[in-house]
Amino acid sequence: MANVKAAIPKGTRDFGPAVMIKRNYIFDTIKKVFKKYGYQEIQTPTMENLDTLTGKYGDEGDQLIFKILNSGNYMLKAESLKQNGDELSSKKLLPIISEKALRYDLTVPFARYVVMHQQEITSPFKRFQIQPVWRADRPQKGRYREFYQCDADVVGSDSLLNEAEFVCIYDEALSQLGLKDFTIKINNRKILSGIAELIGKPYKIVDLTVAIDKLDKIGLEGVEKELLEKGFATADLEILKPVILLAGTNDEKLNSLKSILSKSIIGLAGIDEINKVLNYLKGFTLNRAKVELDLTLARGLNYYTGCIFEVKTNEATMGSIGGGGRYDDLTGMFGKEGLAGVGISFGADRIYDVLEELNLFPSTTTESTKVLICVFGENEESFAIPILNKLRQANINAELFPFGAKMKKQMQYANDKSIPYVVIIGGDEMESGLLSLKTMESGEQVKIGIEELVGKLS
Amino acid sequence: MANVKAAIPKGTRDFGPAVMIKRNYIFDTIKKVFKKYGYQEIQTPTMENLDTLTGKYGDEGDQLIFKILNSGNYMLKAESLKQNGDELSSKKLLPIISEKALRYDLTVPFARYVVMHQQEITSPFKRFQIQPVWRADRPQKGRYREFYQCDADVVGSDSLLNEAEFVCIYDEALSQLGLKDFTIKINNRKILSGIAELIGKPYKIVDLTVAIDKLDKIGLEGVEKELLEKGFATADLEILKPVILLAGTNDEKLNSLKSILSKSIIGLAGIDEINKVLNYLKGFTLNRAKVELDLTLARGLNYYTGCIFEVKTNEATMGSIGGGGRYDDLTGMFGKEGLAGVGISFGADRIYDVLEELNLFPSTTTESTKVLICVFGENEESFAIPILNKLRQANINAELFPFGAKMKKQMQYANDKSIPYVVIIGGDEMESGLLSLKTMESGEQVKIGIEELVGKLS
Repeated sequence: MANVKAAIPKGTRDFGPAVMIKRNYIFDTIKKVFKKYGYQEIQTPTMENLDTLTGKYGDEGDQLIFKILNSGNYMLKAESLKQNGDELSSKKLLPIISEKALRYDLTVPFARYVVMHQQEITSPFKRFQIQPVWRADRPQKGRYREFYQCDADVVGSDSLLNEAEFVCIYDEALSQLGLKDFTIKINNRKILSGIAELIGKPYKIVDLTVAIDKLDKIGLEGVEKELLEKGFATADLEILKPVILLAGTNDEKLNSLKSILSKSIIGLAGIDEINKVLNYLKGFTLNRAKVELDLTLARGLNYYTGCIFEVKTNEATMGSIGGGGRYDDLTGMFGKEGLAGVGISFGADRIYDVLEELNLFPSTTTESTKVLICVFGENEESFAIPILNKLRQANINAELFPFGAKMKKQMQYANDKSIPYVVIIGGDEMESGLLSLKTMESGEQVKIGIEELVGKLS
Repeated sequence: MANVKAAIPKGTRDFGPAVMIKRNYIFDTIKKVFKKYGYQEIQTPTMENLDTLTGKYGDEGDQLIFKILNSGNYMLKAESLKQNGDELSSKKLLPIISEKALRYDLTVPFARYVVMHQQEITSPFKRFQIQPVWRADRPQKGRYREFYQCDADVVGSDSLLNEAEFVCIYDEALSQLGLKDFTIKINNRKILSGIAELIGKPYKIVDLTVAIDKLDKIGLEGVEKELLEKGFATADLEILKPVILLAGTNDEKLNSLKSILSKSIIGLAGIDEINKVLNYLKGFTLNRAKVELDLTLARGLNYYTGCIFEVKTNEATMGSIGGGGRYDDLTGMFGKEGLAGVGISFGADRIYDVLEELNLFPSTTTESTKVLICVFGENEESFAIPILNKLRQANINAELFPFGAKMKKQMQYANDKSIPYVVIIGGDEMESGLLSLKTMESGEQVKIGIEELVGKLS
């Protein structure tokens, strides 16, 4: 067979051993916290039926869905279509040659799962899911065509306790990962609706929130400019400005807001929801998270109907490292109406970059080999096998470099794999029964008996 | 948008919470053992370039590869092809409309990985990989279009220590999973070559081994019938019979074989290799595995060049639950010749079925919620939050059922999620400060203080 260049599709990645250890460290930490709060893992297939996915992500999203070619002779079907006088365009060909696609996110498959398994599901259903998704986006720095999402959602419960617990989950997971200064921003779609009512333009809520969501980036002037372009009046801006510039503690903001929105039923409902979440949080111990009411936070507004979350680190230059919110109707698209839920997502790739930037990955890990036995020859290898066996019986991750390689290569191997200890066995060691134990970091070398070695490394 | 039926493509599966816990139990056990022996995890992309995969699995395999449709207007290209006078068949259309495909196994992507990253790789490179693969096979009981493979391989080492350690890995992982009676069968391609030489028909080695590999299923008569049909003579069978019917211990078999194959250089080399592996194994402590030399074992013979492994459980009716062997040239297809390796695979889906059949999954798991707090109303919920907080601070997986549900529903929730303890909080408990703790399995209920509760569940 012809030689093929060893390459991977653009926008995809290989994860080597060192990267995998770090990625698993992040996922394992988050998983453990999800479980602590009663969330259970599920997995859904990589492929979904095409009609499960299309129409859920807008026209632009639909085009980014990776479609899978049917097997068999699909062109026969395509040709028969053509004989009927049709033109053979990509759009018309698609439903004939493809019925399946790679999942685009975890939310739609989760909705499909909930409806399909509604008889088996315990309500409220608290699930988490950590799996890759695929998007035919143009690859660029930090944007991949295959990447992991890391979601937790609860459906079938209206209680704002869930919202409060999601704040705790963010706090606990990110604190455990070593972040010291991060903010969980919280807002409520109903407050945003109240503001739009206040201005007297509730029908312009999307334009309004898209603009104020950019306050961080383009400043007040920028927001005002955009709003004027979108048909807001100067008088509207005068009403809006004091609201989005509200400062102070969360309680101070909420108090001001209560009088500003006093005539908006929906606005007051949003304030009440935020109050309840903050009240729940008083009963929980947060580690390092700051919780901040941010009235400009909107995030995919058309989707969310209640609380909205976003998490930002204040230590590294990075966009949001997590987000989520409450939605009213997850499963309507699959024929089950009125199932409410709330969910959050961790941005694992971004968290990875933040931990790397802040040097927060643990330097030692229990995942790796703890000790490498290096031997000078075949006799030493035979001598070493029972020692290797003893180490492993004591549950110590251990390797023996097969005889025949130069000592320098064996040391290089220990170095490359970040193995902290090396045992060297030559003629002297065989004779005395005392092994040479080298600590790689310090270079220190001592003589040590076998039992003592096992004890030291246990 | 129109309602869509909630369904998944045939041959794919959703894994719900209970199944995920069991699957993770299997994968985590195997992973831990891989790591103990110095194997490191890698992951490769779901999509590979189509030319990386095609031509590696035979014509039949190629047809089972799931291809991914290019994005953009691929039909323009296809039409331009047609204007050159070509007919638009599926086969001709394929390279125009598809450049990527889902990985079919983990071996070819691993070979691609090794060549692509050869500069970064530490040799010998011991890697494991646990990821799904996809095959457009006809789905049937126990055969899926998406399933996980669980592979460990080492490349860049000729030492038979690797083969011996793979036997240890099988032994340790399967013993830890609770299997009590299983056999690791071992053979060597060189011994099979020696036998073909002995008969004087080395060029017929494939026919020979395909037939004797079936001895288990079709018996000696069946094997003889097949061999005669394939052009072997009765005299050949007379030579073969005593070899494949060799009985006794491994040492007895090897001794007999040594004299039978005394004139075959390659046969003796195979015997020597098996001897060395068994000799290494004398230095290691096996838990429950039997190791058996099986001269009829062939398994994908064209691929393997040295030792061949297969694992069978003797407790459940099931085909092999693992297999592997040594190969000479993994990476030649990507332009890097002569890189030898040896690898094994665990059949995770089959192991799942065996553990289920033998009732070997642990009944309790640290993955689940340990205690559910049930409350009668809003006041009780407020009272319960600090208790919930205390439990979680002590690292106990705990949930609170949000107020508003009937006690019966709350109990049902605990039951459905196999939560072992329930704390019930009503007016009495709030007044006395003594909580009601119910042990779900026994139904026993006691009064208990908060600190005592935390201590008991820690």
